[in-house]
Amino acid sequence: MQKKLRLGMIGGGQGAFIGAVHRIAAQLDGEYELVCGAFSSDPEKSKASGLLLGLSENRVYTSYQELFEKENQLPEVERVQVISIVTPNHVHFEPARMALENGFHVVLDKPMTFSLEEALVLRDVANKSGKLFCLTHTYTGYPMVKEARQVVASGKLGKFRKVYVEYPQGWLSRFEEGGDNKQASWRTDPSQSGIAGSMGDIGTHAFNLAEYVSGLEVTQLCADINTVVEGRRLDDDGAVLLKFNNGASGVLIATQVAAGEENNVKIRVYGEHGGVEWQQQDANTLQVKWLDRPTEIWRTGGGYVSTYAQHNTRTPAGHPEGYLEAFANLYRNFALCIKAELEGKQPEPEWQDYPGIEEGVRGMAFIENVVASGKSDKKWLNFTI
Amino acid sequence: MQKKLRLGMIGGGQGAFIGAVHRIAAQLDGEYELVCGAFSSDPEKSKASGLLLGLSENRVYTSYQELFEKENQLPEVERVQVISIVTPNHVHFEPARMALENGFHVVLDKPMTFSLEEALVLRDVANKSGKLFCLTHTYTGYPMVKEARQVVASGKLGKFRKVYVEYPQGWLSRFEEGGDNKQASWRTDPSQSGIAGSMGDIGTHAFNLAEYVSGLEVTQLCADINTVVEGRRLDDDGAVLLKFNNGASGVLIATQVAAGEENNVKIRVYGEHGGVEWQQQDANTLQVKWLDRPTEIWRTGGGYVSTYAQHNTRTPAGHPEGYLEAFANLYRNFALCIKAELEGKQPEPEWQDYPGIEEGVRGMAFIENVVASGKSDKKWLNFTI
Amino acid sequence: MQKKLRLGMIGGGQGAFIGAVHRIAAQLDGEYELVCGAFSSDPEKSKASGLLLGLSENRVYTSYQELFEKENQLPEVERVQVISIVTPNHVHFEPARMALENGFHVVLDKPMTFSLEEALVLRDVANKSGKLFCLTHTYTGYPMVKEARQVVASGKLGKFRKVYVEYPQGWLSRFEEGGDNKQASWRTDPSQSGIAGSMGDIGTHAFNLAEYVSGLEVTQLCADINTVVEGRRLDDDGAVLLKFNNGASGVLIATQVAAGEENNVKIRVYGEHGGVEWQQQDANTLQVKWLDRPTEIWRTGGGYVSTYAQHNTRTPAGHPEGYLEAFANLYRNFALCIKAELEGKQPEPEWQDYPGIEEGVRGMAFIENVVASGKSDKKWLNFTI
Amino acid sequence: MQKKLRLGMIGGGQGAFIGAVHRIAAQLDGEYELVCGAFSSDPEKSKASGLLLGLSENRVYTSYQELFEKENQLPEVERVQVISIVTPNHVHFEPARMALENGFHVVLDKPMTFSLEEALVLRDVANKSGKLFCLTHTYTGYPMVKEARQVVASGKLGKFRKVYVEYPQGWLSRFEEGGDNKQASWRTDPSQSGIAGSMGDIGTHAFNLAEYVSGLEVTQLCADINTVVEGRRLDDDGAVLLKFNNGASGVLIATQVAAGEENNVKIRVYGEHGGVEWQQQDANTLQVKWLDRPTEIWRTGGGYVSTYAQHNTRTPAGHPEGYLEAFANLYRNFALCIKAELEGKQPEPEWQDYPGIEEGVRGMAFIENVVASGKSDKKWLNFTI
Repeated sequence: MQKKLRLGMIGGGQGAFIGAVHRIAAQLDGEYELVCGAFSSDPEKSKASGLLLGLSENRVYTSYQELFEKENQLPEVERVQVISIVTPNHVHFEPARMALENGFHVVLDKPMTFSLEEALVLRDVANKSGKLFCLTHTYTGYPMVKEARQVVASGKLGKFRKVYVEYPQGWLSRFEEGGDNKQASWRTDPSQSGIAGSMGDIGTHAFNLAEYVSGLEVTQLCADINTVVEGRRLDDDGAVLLKFNNGASGVLIATQVAAGEENNVKIRVYGEHGGVEWQQQDANTLQVKWLDRPTEIWRTGGGYVSTYAQHNTRTPAGHPEGYLEAFANLYRNFALCIKAELEGKQPEPEWQDYPGIEEGVRGMAFIENVVASGKSDKKWLNFTI
Repeated sequence: MQKKLRLGMIGGGQGAFIGAVHRIAAQLDGEYELVCGAFSSDPEKSKASGLLLGLSENRVYTSYQELFEKENQLPEVERVQVISIVTPNHVHFEPARMALENGFHVVLDKPMTFSLEEALVLRDVANKSGKLFCLTHTYTGYPMVKEARQVVASGKLGKFRKVYVEYPQGWLSRFEEGGDNKQASWRTDPSQSGIAGSMGDIGTHAFNLAEYVSGLEVTQLCADINTVVEGRRLDDDGAVLLKFNNGASGVLIATQVAAGEENNVKIRVYGEHGGVEWQQQDANTLQVKWLDRPTEIWRTGGGYVSTYAQHNTRTPAGHPEGYLEAFANLYRNFALCIKAELEGKQPEPEWQDYPGIEEGVRGMAFIENVVASGKSDKKWLNFTI
Repeated sequence: MQKKLRLGMIGGGQGAFIGAVHRIAAQLDGEYELVCGAFSSDPEKSKASGLLLGLSENRVYTSYQELFEKENQLPEVERVQVISIVTPNHVHFEPARMALENGFHVVLDKPMTFSLEEALVLRDVANKSGKLFCLTHTYTGYPMVKEARQVVASGKLGKFRKVYVEYPQGWLSRFEEGGDNKQASWRTDPSQSGIAGSMGDIGTHAFNLAEYVSGLEVTQLCADINTVVEGRRLDDDGAVLLKFNNGASGVLIATQVAAGEENNVKIRVYGEHGGVEWQQQDANTLQVKWLDRPTEIWRTGGGYVSTYAQHNTRTPAGHPEGYLEAFANLYRNFALCIKAELEGKQPEPEWQDYPGIEEGVRGMAFIENVVASGKSDKKWLNFTI
Repeated sequence: MQKKLRLGMIGGGQGAFIGAVHRIAAQLDGEYELVCGAFSSDPEKSKASGLLLGLSENRVYTSYQELFEKENQLPEVERVQVISIVTPNHVHFEPARMALENGFHVVLDKPMTFSLEEALVLRDVANKSGKLFCLTHTYTGYPMVKEARQVVASGKLGKFRKVYVEYPQGWLSRFEEGGDNKQASWRTDPSQSGIAGSMGDIGTHAFNLAEYVSGLEVTQLCADINTVVEGRRLDDDGAVLLKFNNGASGVLIATQVAAGEENNVKIRVYGEHGGVEWQQQDANTLQVKWLDRPTEIWRTGGGYVSTYAQHNTRTPAGHPEGYLEAFANLYRNFALCIKAELEGKQPEPEWQDYPGIEEGVRGMAFIENVVASGKSDKKWLNFTI
């Protein structure tokens, strides 16, 4: 049996935050070996980055186009198998499309594409390619987020009624893009980010979390979208009223100007008999609340959690696992599914529980709908794709 | 000097939750002595309640009308001075009006009246009467809520940008009004509560808290108002997008169907440089957050808090004070102002910091506006009085 | 029925912390009316304090001896019934003895006396007098501390194995007694406090809490007692290993030099199947932990708590009650027992659940034993009375 | 530059908890490549484990003796460089000695050896070998534990006065070694664990943490050591009073029978002006407390933390890092020091901040001293090596 899948990376050169996170996530469980990459649109920087990562010089490419061309000339046992794409949003579609069409599995950072239009095309490409596709909505990789979804799905809470999801950050409270903050620059630049700032960057995470945990789909929304910091070109703050396909309602908050907040994404959902609450800052805890009896503190590693939570946990209860482990869960489950395919086996349902192309399309639709709603005088906008 | 003000109570007979709270709040600091009351619209129950409270039989009345009539016949040194009204909403206006016109100071439970129209009339009555008026928006009685307002007012956070206020309860998750739950029955009955359920009962608290802490006024709102439990006649859930008179925005959440939630009212506000966060479940703590330095945990009784927080605290740091003390702060400050008037002195600013007739009018306007917005297809509704 | 018991106070003049707390605790539930007092050993100060409290001049006395003499001359229906003693430790025994011998019920602040010897005499006096006696170990007045005791007593946790109790304070981190800090001065003065500083002031609380919750008795101890701050005359820090009469062991920590700590007294106990944890800073929560299932968050006001917790709670779940309410529970239960006696009724078990003379004797024995152990080279000292 | 150090592992076959943790820790940052191993004393099991890990069959050995013999025959560029030893305690000394004497760097799980005697010999071996040695006291790998040490060392807290360190677990509340719980079996077996159970397994962690954060050394101790569960052969519970070389005192708690507890190791230390508090369950937070001003919440990733915390953090503030990252910090720092040596460079002080041979000797001395004290009637025992 092949132990490690051969991984290639597009983007994620020196100084990039999310590229390093993807690499840690991929290697944490020993499921992947980084074999090649095109780490930057600047060929010099790409080379330097690749060498620092210990790659052979001949497999560090100056562009993703070159990567696909050269890798395809390698014997199959050496050739890259999975492509990670960790570039800014405007360079998601084309490399993802090429990767799929060249027969590689794809891990792609969110939001999926620059526009909904691209997303719909990519969905077709992916479906035709028969290749596997993973979109890194990290938060659904946390064991206790998976547990939240399982509790809801079990019916224990009764009919689903309400969701509150929030993603408060403070790091864009000032005009950071005026200086040399690379993260701030591209995320607030419409030519790289697309039509949304905070709504694309973190609103899509919150939206994905709400649909994932509830098991429902948003059907209508009403958004207040703001650009709070003077001079900024995209939204940095927003709040959205939601309606779901079972009649439930919700509130989604995403802001990057809550000065003093870090990244404490949080979700609370309620049914007829109780609710569940999870927040990243206490990631190994799921509060399970009941109408008539004490709140329970469910913990990662507890003997009573579902197979979904168990499968995504590495250590016994009381050993905190965090963001990198959640991210690694996406990579690991993706690897397990790819290996199952290579071995002609049926993957377990727990392995298949990672975000894919449909979540990507819905995320892009969220961006288009939420921006449209923000500009509209009408209260409710139908969520359309 | 007269030590204790003579207090009369309208409503609050046996079994009433809020009547007992008012009595504890009044007597906790020894500022009032209960001398008379009309505790129920049922004369027998009023008598029984008064006797249980240790009142002389001749000062337990069968109606508030009788109370005013008979008390006015007593010599001034015996006569009641302050009237507490703790009846359901539809019996707020008339006894409050009569109390003021008969020369008594008034403590009134929220929301102020049955309708905005009544509120506007009561405002005129109160202003003409020259009597003092206190509306029991309890949460602004907490020392650390007062501190939150002071931090905002100090300008330390920079320009005010955002408020999130939430009041989640779960106790109306079922059709409680179908049984013998007296609290549920009147609060979900339009003939006793008015046009709003959750929005009147707890939404007004959240609204008051947002305006109190921010020092701003809501100018526009957009509401999603729901009746979640089948058969219920008033709203039991809602979320409201807010705009303030300085351009800031906010989100207000109030629900009574978040199964498993108790009463953890919470407010977070943000300015350019930082934010503050308070929640009732950790009432003696104010989190003060900063963009560039560690969050600080300000505590009731800390040597560094403002005179407003100090004045409303009875014990050294580390001795938790709670809901009853917050409620007692309203009564105590009201008493201090009344006594100052009796002695011809100027009350301190800290004493005058209790909610009054203007807060009552704005609360009733909130109810009317939020209900109207809930029914409207338009996104933003101007907040009108 | 007599509504309010007539209360007299010894000590607690202007500026005293604990005197004010006792008065609030007594009046919070309307069970007592303060009718007389000897508030200070300084006659002028006693008068001034009494008048400020609204007492008639003729019932403000210049000494406790005068108080007993004059009150005994009053007709029984006017005469004081209950005496609260809130003086420094060296003035506990004599007024308590006189009060009991003069036929008054007594509420006494802890530790009970200046020495164990006095405590044993007072026990005899109390037993002979037939009068009721309450020692204000406040923390056992909290509903969730009572619940902790009930959970242990129910046997749900299995055989009791371990207790950790801690009382960390920081307010004596500096040589406060060098200045005009009245609290610090008498508490660190052996002629007023007795042989122990921190161990008497807060160690006794921790000790009482451990025995109360466990339902066990300490049989052996091993103490490390320190005077950390230079120049101080009594201990300000200590840690004690404990053995209990069922073979369980424990650790007691009490310090007044943990700079930055407030007053977060905390207890954790464990049996074979689980444990409970309570801390004052989150006083309305009891964590109930289980070996094989999720921790439960039991809350004041929850429908599932025992009659002991229910009886000592005034408001629905989610309305935090704190230190003053816990203190008031002692006064209220004491009043209920006195009234039952006056009416010739049997008091309920829940009413009788307040600390009394036996707890006082054990507290004084703790002080003597812990100080002896601190000085001993031997590891284990038998707990003797 | 060589990117990845070649790692071999002794112990850690299928089903072992800590072996898997070591592997994740080693590969998380891509600093090591596992090239060989002797994973079990059972040759079949060793082979199976090695193949599952993707090793070449010829580098999976049937014993550690064979490993050293065969690896030494390989060319230097292929030969293993670092040996991880993750066997039970009684198989620590011999493979560690051989590894060092054969010229390999060693990572060894704690406690260092079976006895203090072995530890002292190993210290000599290590010192003579010139090879680097890392002992995996995981908790000192957390960025905020490093920050705690830096705050203390900075002198900001003033003279160090007090430490409370605790490590409560509940997983041995029952006679687990009676069944097939492999973890329980060897840890409670004197022939595999040594003279201590809980004190060796987790007490040593607590001891190491106390000395690491305080920067002090324990000079005296007084221990209460218990075997609570019937039939158990080693201690499962203990509490220890401590004295430090600057006169400070402390309390160390370690138990494995606190039913319902997971693994929430916690340390609080206090100086004249304030204190710091850290606990694993909220691992990315350091509470910094002050006598006269608000407690501060220092966070992993905050711009204000020391270079020690920064260097050991991978993600921006708000992305929780946990136990595996803390463990990986040990491996990463060890790798950085080895590579510096290979390149003839001076390692940074931040890299050298990992536990080594001296910490191992002190840990073994702690075990011997604490067990001796547990059996002694004398209160204080000098800490001897």
